[in-house]
Amino acid sequence: MSGQETQGSAYAALMDYQRETEALAQIAGRLGWDQETTMPRGAAAQRAEEMAAIEGVLHARRTDPRMADWLAEAAAPDAVAAAQLRLIRRSYARASRVPAALAQALARLTSSAQGIWAEARANDDVAAFLPTLAEVVALKREEAACLAGDGSLYDAMIDDYEPGATAASLGAMFDAMRPRLVALKAAALDSPHQPADQQGAFGQEAQMRLSRDLAAAFGYDFTRGRLDLAVHPFSSGSGSDVRITTRVVETDPFNCLYSTIHETGHACYEQGIDPDYALTPLGQGVSMGVHESQSRIYENQIGRSRAFTGWLYERMRGVFGDFGSADADGFYATVNKLRPGFIRTEADEVQYNLHVMLRFDLERALIAGDLAVGDLEAAWNDRFRADFGLEVPRPSLGLLQDVHWSVGLFGYFPTYSLGNLYAGCLHAALRADIPDLDADLAQGQTGAATGWLREKVQRHGGLMEPRALIAQACGAEPSAEPLLDYLEAKFAGIYRL
Amino acid sequence: MSGQETQGSAYAALMDYQRETEALAQIAGRLGWDQETTMPRGAAAQRAEEMAAIEGVLHARRTDPRMADWLAEAAAPDAVAAAQLRLIRRSYARASRVPAALAQALARLTSSAQGIWAEARANDDVAAFLPTLAEVVALKREEAACLAGDGSLYDAMIDDYEPGATAASLGAMFDAMRPRLVALKAAALDSPHQPADQQGAFGQEAQMRLSRDLAAAFGYDFTRGRLDLAVHPFSSGSGSDVRITTRVVETDPFNCLYSTIHETGHACYEQGIDPDYALTPLGQGVSMGVHESQSRIYENQIGRSRAFTGWLYERMRGVFGDFGSADADGFYATVNKLRPGFIRTEADEVQYNLHVMLRFDLERALIAGDLAVGDLEAAWNDRFRADFGLEVPRPSLGLLQDVHWSVGLFGYFPTYSLGNLYAGCLHAALRADIPDLDADLAQGQTGAATGWLREKVQRHGGLMEPRALIAQACGAEPSAEPLLDYLEAKFAGIYRL
Repeated sequence: MSGQETQGSAYAALMDYQRETEALAQIAGRLGWDQETTMPRGAAAQRAEEMAAIEGVLHARRTDPRMADWLAEAAAPDAVAAAQLRLIRRSYARASRVPAALAQALARLTSSAQGIWAEARANDDVAAFLPTLAEVVALKREEAACLAGDGSLYDAMIDDYEPGATAASLGAMFDAMRPRLVALKAAALDSPHQPADQQGAFGQEAQMRLSRDLAAAFGYDFTRGRLDLAVHPFSSGSGSDVRITTRVVETDPFNCLYSTIHETGHACYEQGIDPDYALTPLGQGVSMGVHESQSRIYENQIGRSRAFTGWLYERMRGVFGDFGSADADGFYATVNKLRPGFIRTEADEVQYNLHVMLRFDLERALIAGDLAVGDLEAAWNDRFRADFGLEVPRPSLGLLQDVHWSVGLFGYFPTYSLGNLYAGCLHAALRADIPDLDADLAQGQTGAATGWLREKVQRHGGLMEPRALIAQACGAEPSAEPLLDYLEAKFAGIYRL
Repeated sequence: MSGQETQGSAYAALMDYQRETEALAQIAGRLGWDQETTMPRGAAAQRAEEMAAIEGVLHARRTDPRMADWLAEAAAPDAVAAAQLRLIRRSYARASRVPAALAQALARLTSSAQGIWAEARANDDVAAFLPTLAEVVALKREEAACLAGDGSLYDAMIDDYEPGATAASLGAMFDAMRPRLVALKAAALDSPHQPADQQGAFGQEAQMRLSRDLAAAFGYDFTRGRLDLAVHPFSSGSGSDVRITTRVVETDPFNCLYSTIHETGHACYEQGIDPDYALTPLGQGVSMGVHESQSRIYENQIGRSRAFTGWLYERMRGVFGDFGSADADGFYATVNKLRPGFIRTEADEVQYNLHVMLRFDLERALIAGDLAVGDLEAAWNDRFRADFGLEVPRPSLGLLQDVHWSVGLFGYFPTYSLGNLYAGCLHAALRADIPDLDADLAQGQTGAATGWLREKVQRHGGLMEPRALIAQACGAEPSAEPLLDYLEAKFAGIYRL
């Protein structure tokens, strides 16, 4: 064979191999879905063994010696192939630095830790969770030490979720956001023009029916997905099997409806990726920050806009009759109301990033060794008092509210705020490109907006690096300005500031 | 190390490795459950790739060169270890004979063939299914050729489901059964004393609620399992995650209720295996015939007994009120009534094995090459006319009714009748050991019966060969006599023969 043929056949062999690895990774992801939605309680221990086994298979494949040979020989015939090779090289380098036994131990521990956390949360029992959390922190630090080289452990963790981001770059982002958010929060809460609260009870079946309508209205393809109930809403899977979950609170229909729209954003990103990339490294969302940009722009900039809420108001009247909201303007204000609250996932657009900053600072200290697991609850509660002026009444409203740390997701939280920042940038560009978007949204028509996002962001999958993707989509380097400008304008209107 | 230490460490290494293989096999099984219960329709093609990928992993592990080394070195310290080695050797020998590419092609084909069959059945379109069936037959014949050595292809297939059985031994079983079943069927259908038919409609929710009660009454542990709806009732999984499905026909509550009891029998077998065997070769039902013996004795000899139906009658009156059955004796007769019918899974105890014989003869001819796939429908309909005196009106009531052939299960059907035979033997022994069993069953108490089955059969998992296990449980070599004696006595009573 000529050199070119060798290069071509090495690339083909590598991609065939990679395709099976991606299929196995999809299986592992679906086991995670099953664990959260359908797994019997008593299966937890066996499931941990199963997760360790499939992680062992994945790790062995990602570090297979043939990978090094193929990567050394393979040449990319085009830009897509070059991007595939870039991602495979990164995955191979990462996996090769982590011993197989550690990777399996982490899979086993985080699978069972999730159940232990859930039970501790249900019982408001921090002490029952901390020993497990300490184990997770220790193993994740061990893993990060394998990955970090001369860099910091926490930066190595961030890199798993947001390639190219660092604690420093994310810290700078939070520094830019914080003063204007704090000022906006204070002004809104001090305003005499407070929106009405939603009253009443809303049946589970009706909420789920409306959730299905909303997911469909945002373009979710139910023939390649499904919507179920779970304790925590999430989206799971890539390619042609992308599933979402939501939850129902009878007194708060917006919890369910906007969780659904949020997860629909994540799922439509996966469903919108070029089908040619299916079961390849390019065939999934490029980073958690970009992923969150899609879920947040669906949920907030589109779903909580005055125009779209006008349509939703009429849909809710169709389902629930007169549900105690006087008119569409009042409904819009209610949907966007700032409330004192303990739970990140229920926070409004203004306060949400303050919840994330708290976690960012605490987990950074935890991983750096500056904060002990045993001191975490006190640190959480102190910080919450300082930032929100509230005493955390019980740990399920504080430290125990999020699943993330139990499953080892350190460095993940800040990508939520990065996603908000990206959503702000994308929204500004979208509005510039489609000035009359509100006319569509007022009819419940999201196609122009979601089509723009699919074209600019979603279809590319992992083709570009995250920040470069957003910059290209927006025609400008990402910054916090568009998000903050949008928030100030929106809430000045609602609160008559 | 001494020779003994080497042997011990080889055994330990082998079992560690095997444990991961078994965990991965559980994952593959759960994917199958997912495909039948929750998978989105549009995910079928990707799922076929996923199934091929995990099958590739399993095949590679089962044929790993280290397996040969460990098996050569390992010595069994006790009878349990000896049984583990025996099963591992069998699995290794089987897997080593089948090329990896063929194993993966089969997994891919049968995963997608299942959806093609389901659609063909829904549309009563045999032509849409036959090309796929021809592919499945061809690949299964290719696989069997790798396994058969000098033996017949069909015997090699049987061996996958019922080690030790052959077409000859199963044919002899059917020859022993057929005359007495045919005579009993004719006598019952000719009797002037026909049981009443069940009339009315029974809501899905109430049927499912009662199903849950029945599963629990038979000892199913819901903390290690779950009950869902599916097109075809089945049981899936081993160890601490054993799931069952049932179906609901509003006009026929017994379809749902007895499907549930049947699958509960399968599931209780898996749940009843010694937990020390979990994720080892011993940790699952030893053969399909023994599996079916448990499902059938739960469903029929216990669940359709006069004593138990007396309790069920009262439970149904509690749930449905007066549901049109005059008294417990009439209810017992209705539940056991022989009806002309096309569907195997809905057949009564007398006619069921005649349905199996039809499939046994047809699939044997198909695999031997004596019957072409294109002639299968005509052959089915001719045989059905001969055996049941009925014209098959559409293929969903004939050739297309069962999923088995689409997923490559040739040699599987006869194990259903073997299971009935074993159930007959076990039932005779059970009644001899616990003469006053009916007093319990009349109270809905199955514990004495299911406890006996757990002790004699279930807890042993794969420790003994299937026929030896039944012989030991019953204290006699298995034969068709106890089943036929039981059927003749039971239906003589109902039909006053």
